[in-house]
Amino acid sequence: MSKEHLKIAVIGGGSSYTPELIEGLLTRKDELPVGEIWLVDIVEGYEKVQVIANLAKRMIKKVGSEAKVYATLNRKEALLNADFVCSQFRSGGLEARIRDEKIAIKYDMIGQETNGLGGFTNACRTIPIALEIAEEMETLCPNAWLLNFTNPSGMVTEAILKYTKVKAVGLCNIPVNMERGAANMLGVPKSELTMQIAGLNHFVFATKAMHNGEDQLPRLIHEMLNGNDQMTPKNIPPFDWPRVIVESLGIIPCAYLRYYYMSRDIIEEEIHEAKRANNRGEVVKRIEKEIFEVYSDPNLDVKPAILEERGGAYYSEAACELMSSIHNDKRTIMHVNTRNNGAIQGLPDDCAVEVSSIITSTEIIPLSVEPFAPDTLALIQLMKQFETLTVEAAVEGDIAKAYRALVLNPIVDTGSHLDEALEETVRENLQFLPLFAHVLEK
Amino acid sequence: MSKEHLKIAVIGGGSSYTPELIEGLLTRKDELPVGEIWLVDIVEGYEKVQVIANLAKRMIKKVGSEAKVYATLNRKEALLNADFVCSQFRSGGLEARIRDEKIAIKYDMIGQETNGLGGFTNACRTIPIALEIAEEMETLCPNAWLLNFTNPSGMVTEAILKYTKVKAVGLCNIPVNMERGAANMLGVPKSELTMQIAGLNHFVFATKAMHNGEDQLPRLIHEMLNGNDQMTPKNIPPFDWPRVIVESLGIIPCAYLRYYYMSRDIIEEEIHEAKRANNRGEVVKRIEKEIFEVYSDPNLDVKPAILEERGGAYYSEAACELMSSIHNDKRTIMHVNTRNNGAIQGLPDDCAVEVSSIITSTEIIPLSVEPFAPDTLALIQLMKQFETLTVEAAVEGDIAKAYRALVLNPIVDTGSHLDEALEETVRENLQFLPLFAHVLEK
Amino acid sequence: MSKEHLKIAVIGGGSSYTPELIEGLLTRKDELPVGEIWLVDIVEGYEKVQVIANLAKRMIKKVGSEAKVYATLNRKEALLNADFVCSQFRSGGLEARIRDEKIAIKYDMIGQETNGLGGFTNACRTIPIALEIAEEMETLCPNAWLLNFTNPSGMVTEAILKYTKVKAVGLCNIPVNMERGAANMLGVPKSELTMQIAGLNHFVFATKAMHNGEDQLPRLIHEMLNGNDQMTPKNIPPFDWPRVIVESLGIIPCAYLRYYYMSRDIIEEEIHEAKRANNRGEVVKRIEKEIFEVYSDPNLDVKPAILEERGGAYYSEAACELMSSIHNDKRTIMHVNTRNNGAIQGLPDDCAVEVSSIITSTEIIPLSVEPFAPDTLALIQLMKQFETLTVEAAVEGDIAKAYRALVLNPIVDTGSHLDEALEETVRENLQFLPLFAHVLEK
Amino acid sequence: MSKEHLKIAVIGGGSSYTPELIEGLLTRKDELPVGEIWLVDIVEGYEKVQVIANLAKRMIKKVGSEAKVYATLNRKEALLNADFVCSQFRSGGLEARIRDEKIAIKYDMIGQETNGLGGFTNACRTIPIALEIAEEMETLCPNAWLLNFTNPSGMVTEAILKYTKVKAVGLCNIPVNMERGAANMLGVPKSELTMQIAGLNHFVFATKAMHNGEDQLPRLIHEMLNGNDQMTPKNIPPFDWPRVIVESLGIIPCAYLRYYYMSRDIIEEEIHEAKRANNRGEVVKRIEKEIFEVYSDPNLDVKPAILEERGGAYYSEAACELMSSIHNDKRTIMHVNTRNNGAIQGLPDDCAVEVSSIITSTEIIPLSVEPFAPDTLALIQLMKQFETLTVEAAVEGDIAKAYRALVLNPIVDTGSHLDEALEETVRENLQFLPLFAHVLEK
Repeated sequence: MSKEHLKIAVIGGGSSYTPELIEGLLTRKDELPVGEIWLVDIVEGYEKVQVIANLAKRMIKKVGSEAKVYATLNRKEALLNADFVCSQFRSGGLEARIRDEKIAIKYDMIGQETNGLGGFTNACRTIPIALEIAEEMETLCPNAWLLNFTNPSGMVTEAILKYTKVKAVGLCNIPVNMERGAANMLGVPKSELTMQIAGLNHFVFATKAMHNGEDQLPRLIHEMLNGNDQMTPKNIPPFDWPRVIVESLGIIPCAYLRYYYMSRDIIEEEIHEAKRANNRGEVVKRIEKEIFEVYSDPNLDVKPAILEERGGAYYSEAACELMSSIHNDKRTIMHVNTRNNGAIQGLPDDCAVEVSSIITSTEIIPLSVEPFAPDTLALIQLMKQFETLTVEAAVEGDIAKAYRALVLNPIVDTGSHLDEALEETVRENLQFLPLFAHVLEK
Repeated sequence: MSKEHLKIAVIGGGSSYTPELIEGLLTRKDELPVGEIWLVDIVEGYEKVQVIANLAKRMIKKVGSEAKVYATLNRKEALLNADFVCSQFRSGGLEARIRDEKIAIKYDMIGQETNGLGGFTNACRTIPIALEIAEEMETLCPNAWLLNFTNPSGMVTEAILKYTKVKAVGLCNIPVNMERGAANMLGVPKSELTMQIAGLNHFVFATKAMHNGEDQLPRLIHEMLNGNDQMTPKNIPPFDWPRVIVESLGIIPCAYLRYYYMSRDIIEEEIHEAKRANNRGEVVKRIEKEIFEVYSDPNLDVKPAILEERGGAYYSEAACELMSSIHNDKRTIMHVNTRNNGAIQGLPDDCAVEVSSIITSTEIIPLSVEPFAPDTLALIQLMKQFETLTVEAAVEGDIAKAYRALVLNPIVDTGSHLDEALEETVRENLQFLPLFAHVLEK
Repeated sequence: MSKEHLKIAVIGGGSSYTPELIEGLLTRKDELPVGEIWLVDIVEGYEKVQVIANLAKRMIKKVGSEAKVYATLNRKEALLNADFVCSQFRSGGLEARIRDEKIAIKYDMIGQETNGLGGFTNACRTIPIALEIAEEMETLCPNAWLLNFTNPSGMVTEAILKYTKVKAVGLCNIPVNMERGAANMLGVPKSELTMQIAGLNHFVFATKAMHNGEDQLPRLIHEMLNGNDQMTPKNIPPFDWPRVIVESLGIIPCAYLRYYYMSRDIIEEEIHEAKRANNRGEVVKRIEKEIFEVYSDPNLDVKPAILEERGGAYYSEAACELMSSIHNDKRTIMHVNTRNNGAIQGLPDDCAVEVSSIITSTEIIPLSVEPFAPDTLALIQLMKQFETLTVEAAVEGDIAKAYRALVLNPIVDTGSHLDEALEETVRENLQFLPLFAHVLEK
Repeated sequence: MSKEHLKIAVIGGGSSYTPELIEGLLTRKDELPVGEIWLVDIVEGYEKVQVIANLAKRMIKKVGSEAKVYATLNRKEALLNADFVCSQFRSGGLEARIRDEKIAIKYDMIGQETNGLGGFTNACRTIPIALEIAEEMETLCPNAWLLNFTNPSGMVTEAILKYTKVKAVGLCNIPVNMERGAANMLGVPKSELTMQIAGLNHFVFATKAMHNGEDQLPRLIHEMLNGNDQMTPKNIPPFDWPRVIVESLGIIPCAYLRYYYMSRDIIEEEIHEAKRANNRGEVVKRIEKEIFEVYSDPNLDVKPAILEERGGAYYSEAACELMSSIHNDKRTIMHVNTRNNGAIQGLPDDCAVEVSSIITSTEIIPLSVEPFAPDTLALIQLMKQFETLTVEAAVEGDIAKAYRALVLNPIVDTGSHLDEALEETVRENLQFLPLFAHVLEK
């Protein structure tokens, strides 16, 4: 790849996050010679993608870049000869997410778009579309890289890696937040800190924090357990960690691991919030509305401050650095979802893991991880089995695999409640889950 | 071992199950030349062990055996030069079991003496005593075999195998019930059916059911899913299995796996029962009282029918057949808790598994098991980690290991409720858990 | 299997070993109710098989058994409804063996019918015929057991296990000799000694020697290194072992391991012998001639003493005990070639290993072996790769796999000499190696 | 590491290769700010190291560098605060190498300084000194990197990685030659070709040859088998490869693998050469003499052409690129000896492998290798066991481990010849092998 005129396609271009991506590209304009940005969306998002495209054009004009911006509903036109494809669509939109959360909570389970029952539903809704896009890429831009931000990012990436030939890499801002927060906690520049992060998407652990040749992880653990936790993003409830577990493990769980180590507190908080009509999906929807009003202001030509409240901060940092490291063979160490290839011992070579990797112009090389303690490994293996079976269920519409996946998940309850919850899930998502229609026929 | 005058020591000899053991020995008197039976109990059980010893003497007299029966509070006297030691004591007695069940249910968790929080507590209460007994055996009867029925049988056996040199084998009547029930379901003599059973104690699966060279497992699954389940013992609620899972796995989970595949139904049933003051422990206590009244009848000289209501049926079958197979090198295939040694791939060699094994006069040889499907294996690995960490916590009094064990267990909730439940558990069991006293000091 | 009238087919029935088998069956006539013995041979062996059949009839008559003996050239007639099939044929006869040994020595390599280049050639000549027999068994006697003595026994057994459904078990008298010799060395009855033997055919090690619960292996090693080696059969040159290696390994290599640990001494001895026209094959041929003269004596009605010089002593012991243990579900521990199934860690589950196993009426259960030291394991893995590639080469006629097999073998030299030796081998064995004819065309 | 004044220590600085290293440093003077070069040698090499130091000074002066050159016999002075330590000493000098080769050939074995008996002897002579140097580095320059060229490079590196804390990396010019030769064969610039090379030192295979996203390995194999082999260095006899093996493996063995795939041809060639008094060591000795005469010319101020005949061409390329990639965190992919860490599946994590790796400023990251075919893996595992046991024998002076190592090596004959060869080896090297003196006492 030595092109001087990169074409970037953004699937789900009407997302409120897109201006952050635009900002990131403009910041790196000396190393990333962007020629065209294609924002793709579906009919329901037509209005939004127009708003975003117009804002993007104003931002580009302000910094004096020559990049062209296109908004389109024709995905194939956008993919043709693309160099990078950023996938950030949400199947079913925020309504589907809100529905997932409500169904889970109705059955006394944790409601969340990437974990538990909600994560399962989201995967089943999303994976068939992600594979459709990847298959189009195989024809229209076989050399392009797919940067996947679409949640659940780990399972979506695994599906693409297993079922297509597309060069795909999954991204998440959780590791970025951890690294940035850790640098703040240590009072050192982020550029001087190299963390090693490993596990599965939304199920990762920081296993090292190297600064000047010394591992600062023990100090970070100490800080975190004494109230100075800057690694948890704003959209996750900041309960205190069970001190004895974190101290004993000697590694730092990502914020989402609260769903597993403190399940009861999370579900109680969620039920409490739900009664006040404050499930996370609905909060997001309200913020979204406000954001788009701001975006529509014809005088706005920078990313507005309000976006940071949205929870996805530093998203552009990961995406743009990844593109640059590929384009320039920079070999940056980043924390991405990629094929395991033996990096995490005890997981299959061909599954997706989220792990610190070296990004070269031709491949993503995951760094080997010191073996996890057996109990942590057992949890990771369990979750990987949940993910792998969910991917297969999504592709095949196999309800047996769906059940076998769900009974493994520690934050899914089993038994007749699950039967009911699953049936309701299929009924309420029928247009997105056609392969599972047979569940309603019995 | 070629002795013609076997000495058998029974730890917890005052148990209401003991007459079943006596009956089993008498039935096999031609192959097992029993000379002495020593019934050991603690001061609190003095009265009961006397009742049992007297009943045993009447039973022995009736069949014309020469065996002598001794009731004693002096364990060492009983262990000295013993050939077989049957361990069936219950640390803390039924009161402790009732307490375990109540605490769990109070915190909305499944209450059970071998699973979840109750299983953990029981292990911590029991393992130190089991190791004390095994260490005495190393000195007083180094060639004896220890037959362990004390629950949680898998963890107790693992502790003895890892921390002592005693030849120990763990028994449970779940596999016996499965095999017997399966023979009934197939309408064939039990002697013609060879099942392969594998997994962990109270977490096993039937993986084969060979009859006349053909595997009848598919037929058993079909029968079971159509309402003819004769494999579930009376003391476990007989909910319908999730059909799609069992069909898809193609192996038969033991009844206790309902606690994992149907967790919500079980806990709801238990809470319902608890409100009617019917927790299992209390039911058992009431039955126990009735049983001992019957046992005290000086005219009774056989095992009374009432014992079968107690739930431990066929217990003697396993124990006596095991002793005979060892004594006579019969090489019977039995389903026991023993060192894995590679039989179940994916588990450490040195952990205890419950697996079909050949019983010879010098060793227990576990039969190799076809690899489990990855999802089932992941669950078994998770539970094994729970067990191994629990054993270590029990031996070391390490609260961090206790937490790390408990957060792995699928039927234990995590978070601040667990903190409270654990603290209450330690407070209420303080005399049995001296190593954990530090938990209350913080 | 509960038949009271067993049918036994012997492939290669004209072998001089057959009277030993007959004797073994007659000795066990109370536990093995033999009804018919079918001795099968090929046209070239017609005369011999008649001599053997007549001798067998005289032996049977002497002990008053009712068993019928048939000599036939029609293999299918013999296999039909057989209960046991003993395979002891030699493809190409003694001439082929003599040829193998001569070619190897001509190229300065060790000449032997089961090791090195000779073992490779023998496998390629034999495996296609062994598979032909096994395929006939699938149709004519699908429930029969195949007892394979045909060399190279390990590779032949692996081929049958991998390519057919026949229940096959490979036998060799090396482990029998080791166990018997060890009992003599220890001065204990053979019945009281239980050895554990593990590795590959002609590449095994004694890893335990249990007597009265104590492992006598260290004592055996001591005896052996001090000149009292009764474990080496007569047909292997009894060089002194390299003391330091055997002491350090702490296990006892079988006599054939001299070919690997003392390669130079063996080849020099062989070249020396060859100059005196005494290669092993020719010695055997001369003894064979004498033996058949003795067998033809119409007054002979017992196995004659001369057979013991032949080198295969105790062959009948293994075969008959195996049949009896299967027929009566005796669960004897024997040392046989069977599917690994995890018994030797580090080898594939589906390959053949020679390992102590429990013989039941329905399956052969290999006993788990303590992990070998890494260097010994590496050698065993190397030899197993040699064997597996040789089996594939023999089945597929693939010269690349033949080369890849041979370069692994420590007693095969590589380079242009090997090219020549291999070409000569194919040319000289062309009628037995039709799949390799293409080698001569290049 | 951000020093602008690097100190480089060269152990064995009097080697005839050193001017190549000097040239390499001067070529890279913009990226490697060398301040001091310390050439260390022993008393026997005093004269040579003076010659080299003077030549180096003239070369430096010619290009206008400011670097200072010091020749010293005081190793500690050179190591103090060094940034890089290049180790290229030869224990016992060329005389020892010549002796090794002669002893091996005398006993009809391949004579070579890194393979077989010679490699073993060289390892035992060298490892104790290498560990002594590494231990001094732990004190005198704990942050320095050790670049090891001392043969046998793989075993020396493994010893340092296992027994000390020094950051060591082993180098060899075999992979450099393969990559350079392959580029020539393909007619592409070396910078555009990325080979993946994996295995053990002097036992590596090229497993990929990526050019413009396509794997050119099949084309290279085709060229090589048709007579265009530019990958074999001048000092290895260029026999034709066994075509069928290389085609079937689908990977390219390094030139040294001829010692294993064509053992007989090599030994015959060597015996032939030896009769003409041309063993490799003696040839080298003669060339050395000529080289030093040239070096002494006070007008010479560049690396002379004669050095290329010496066989170690491109040695400086590897060393200097490695230093630069570390100093500048260039993340170059190089083929080095480093800790396996799972890169080659089937070998221990902690052993040394020679494998394509990314060189960063803080660590060497080996790239994962696609699993080898089982037969190739078995050979690699065998050789690794030879290496690991040899390292242990060298450190412990354990003759049993020495034997166990040697019997594994495919190009070492076993038996009484080996006993004699080993005894002669110890006797002739006694001053370098004091730990093995006990061998002579028996």
